Amino acid sequence: LSGFLKEFFEPRGVALVGATRTPGFGYGIPLMLKGQGWGERLYLVNPSATELHGMKVYPRVADVPDPVDLAVVIVGAAAVPGALNEIGARGIRSVVIESAGFAEAGDEGRALQEKALAVAREHGIRVIGPNCVGVVNTKNRFTTVEIIEEALQPGNVGIIAQSGVFGNVLLDGLHERGLHVAKAVTLGNRMDVNECDVLDYLRHDPDTRVIMMYLEGAADGRRLIETLGRVTRDKPVLVLKSGRTGAGRAAAASHTGSMSGEDALYDAAFAQSGAIRAQSLEELLGFARVFATQPLPAGPRLGVVTSSGSLGALAADAAVSAGLELPALSAATAQKMREGAPGWMNVKNPLDVGPSGLYQKAVAAMLQDPAVDMVLAVAIIPFAVVRQFKPFGLTPKTWFGDLASIRALAPHKPFALCAVGHSEFIADMASLSGPSIPLFTSPEPAARALAALWKHQRR
Amino acid sequence: LSGFLKEFFEPRGVALVGATRTPGFGYGIPLMLKGQGWGERLYLVNPSATELHGMKVYPRVADVPDPVDLAVVIVGAAAVPGALNEIGARGIRSVVIESAGFAEAGDEGRALQEKALAVAREHGIRVIGPNCVGVVNTKNRFTTVEIIEEALQPGNVGIIAQSGVFGNVLLDGLHERGLHVAKAVTLGNRMDVNECDVLDYLRHDPDTRVIMMYLEGAADGRRLIETLGRVTRDKPVLVLKSGRTGAGRAAAASHTGSMSGEDALYDAAFAQSGAIRAQSLEELLGFARVFATQPLPAGPRLGVVTSSGSLGALAADAAVSAGLELPALSAATAQKMREGAPGWMNVKNPLDVGPSGLYQKAVAAMLQDPAVDMVLAVAIIPFAVVRQFKPFGLTPKTWFGDLASIRALAPHKPFALCAVGHSEFIADMASLSGPSIPLFTSPEPAARALAALWKHQRR
Repeated sequence: LSGFLKEFFEPRGVALVGATRTPGFGYGIPLMLKGQGWGERLYLVNPSATELHGMKVYPRVADVPDPVDLAVVIVGAAAVPGALNEIGARGIRSVVIESAGFAEAGDEGRALQEKALAVAREHGIRVIGPNCVGVVNTKNRFTTVEIIEEALQPGNVGIIAQSGVFGNVLLDGLHERGLHVAKAVTLGNRMDVNECDVLDYLRHDPDTRVIMMYLEGAADGRRLIETLGRVTRDKPVLVLKSGRTGAGRAAAASHTGSMSGEDALYDAAFAQSGAIRAQSLEELLGFARVFATQPLPAGPRLGVVTSSGSLGALAADAAVSAGLELPALSAATAQKMREGAPGWMNVKNPLDVGPSGLYQKAVAAMLQDPAVDMVLAVAIIPFAVVRQFKPFGLTPKTWFGDLASIRALAPHKPFALCAVGHSEFIADMASLSGPSIPLFTSPEPAARALAALWKHQRR
Repeated sequence: LSGFLKEFFEPRGVALVGATRTPGFGYGIPLMLKGQGWGERLYLVNPSATELHGMKVYPRVADVPDPVDLAVVIVGAAAVPGALNEIGARGIRSVVIESAGFAEAGDEGRALQEKALAVAREHGIRVIGPNCVGVVNTKNRFTTVEIIEEALQPGNVGIIAQSGVFGNVLLDGLHERGLHVAKAVTLGNRMDVNECDVLDYLRHDPDTRVIMMYLEGAADGRRLIETLGRVTRDKPVLVLKSGRTGAGRAAAASHTGSMSGEDALYDAAFAQSGAIRAQSLEELLGFARVFATQPLPAGPRLGVVTSSGSLGALAADAAVSAGLELPALSAATAQKMREGAPGWMNVKNPLDVGPSGLYQKAVAAMLQDPAVDMVLAVAIIPFAVVRQFKPFGLTPKTWFGDLASIRALAPHKPFALCAVGHSEFIADMASLSGPSIPLFTSPEPAARALAALWKHQRR
């Protein structure tokens, strides 16, 4: 269905049309690709140059040797139709157009985009763009965009972003949140390839486990619903959707309500087709972190272990509001926890262990409780205490245990951690829990992310 | 009305009943207070000790010299009524009871709490607690809780937290978010003093500009509405309310719906009385950051300047949903921005300047536009670019300008910044914007925080 996209992610050779010595994409992308080991498979094209970054520059696309599957176009908008003609004549059928100045820039640009599309169709060329930064494949380190080295660490997240800049900046921060990309695409003006093509491609991509998508509008609403319905049966799709023109228009017209109407349609479409809509960028990232690392739950029953009753209550509120249940503990678990518990400890769910020293025992018991499908552990301790006891060798591990090992007691149950307080404490908890446990710094987002897992699984 | 609380925050002398050599509050709090310069005004009490941390220990409260306004009680629950009797007899009328094991611990504890209250009433003693960690006053560095030094940096935030641990941990992280406390109170079981007393006190406290409150339930619903109605006329009150028992009960009973009903009542009460309810801990902190640093807006009209159309759209969506308007730019501003703007730049609101180099000009123009009441600046740039140009002396300041100075062009208009991407970029933007500009790392919370300002002001 969308197998044609393979040439975009795994080209045998790449022609870069518009290589240049001037700072910008035409200078930076060749340098980036060479640095990632693509120098031998990269053919730079520019009629007025012979060498760049120590690589030969070909005057015309026609001169580029075999094998070459993909062309990346960086020339000015007006020169794009001509370039597409050359590319088609050379037998290349996959093109990323990064140049801007098309439909997004008014009537003249729109006409130019139509013209470019006609040329592409004539040659049977498939196009990503224009006005985008193309693709990233961390597995073979192929990228048509200058990104930081850290963003190329292979992972299991697929990204579809309508906007190039946003897609790029998203990649800048992901690794710091423990998220690593398998493949990323920025779509730009979607003159040809749109989000549906990429969704179908990522559905079959063995490296992609969860798909994050940023949309400003559907290229084709009906097809998007159909595609999402198909894809979400195999993989979770997390959507962040802005009502760009809608919000702008509604805002300018002061409460016409048109935006919220349109937005409700999208809400319904995502719900119907099984996509998980995030309410904010922050929420999208939190959801992705949980889907990228946790198994799907067998049911909606959440167990909460906490060292703060307040944060446990906030987590419970958020979880129940988002469709989860907080079951009573099973008799065996309750019995186990009552043994050795101080009198003030209330053995229930959320299980507030306070300063009882029973945190590790409680997390283990909760994970192993057959009445519980997933566990949220909330860990706080006044930092004055942490500082006071650090010289004596007491660390967060002393109080909260080796969470990575405890968590392994029930690898089939989703598990998330929430730590609140001083950044040093949160950093300690992050290293205690390790890369496979999603760490949140506020209880509500953690609970909502676990609820999103269930939302997906229920379907 | 609540002037009696002055003795809790500014005692001339303090008796600490239950000083001890065993690790815990009775050991740590004297050490903390001595370190903050309170050694000479602190009188430790313990019948079986004579010295602690180099300070004299008095056998009985009766032995404590004048002046002494406040007693902090840390003895076991069962000994508290007796201690209150001694304290009353000594003529002390203000007491913080930190001991736990009262109403929160079942029927026996509840009876003990009633007994303690009766003793307090008999002597005309006002009580904060039990089961709390009392008060913090950063101005005179008086604290009845062990907290980290950084949390004692004086600021303009007042905190009322029902839970002691949560209040404590909240203090651990605030300074890292640019929030500094004037006064904080944890209420515990609210045997006597409740959130209304403290609200009225903070209303008149010249150091408190904004009040953050965490509640699990109102001590007296009707009085809370009345009090909030009065206090919010003078100062913003930000509330985070969990439905603790409600959520727990609702969750256990699987969707009885009772919780959401009760919660709707609280929602209505907060709306009616002018308090701003935060939907999560994270949101509470974001709101506080904006209220602590920004003026109130003259109207609901938000101007958005962005280097990413996508993030601008997300900000616009969130702002309009939260009750703000995105007005058209005034003719003069539009004219100013069109001069020297590249053809692709769409001069409207949100104003997406892309890589035009016009970011600083746009922020300045937006701040000075009479059609705009407040400004949100969204700043992103691919980190690969930042890294590439850093060796040449180009920094985020080059692209985004001296935001602290630009912001000063319209000091009467609220201003917030959103930076997305690599943590190093965000840190750069934080130092560029300085302590008086609230920095967010996601556009929606920034927009909602500005909307909260207007919500308060409109009232």
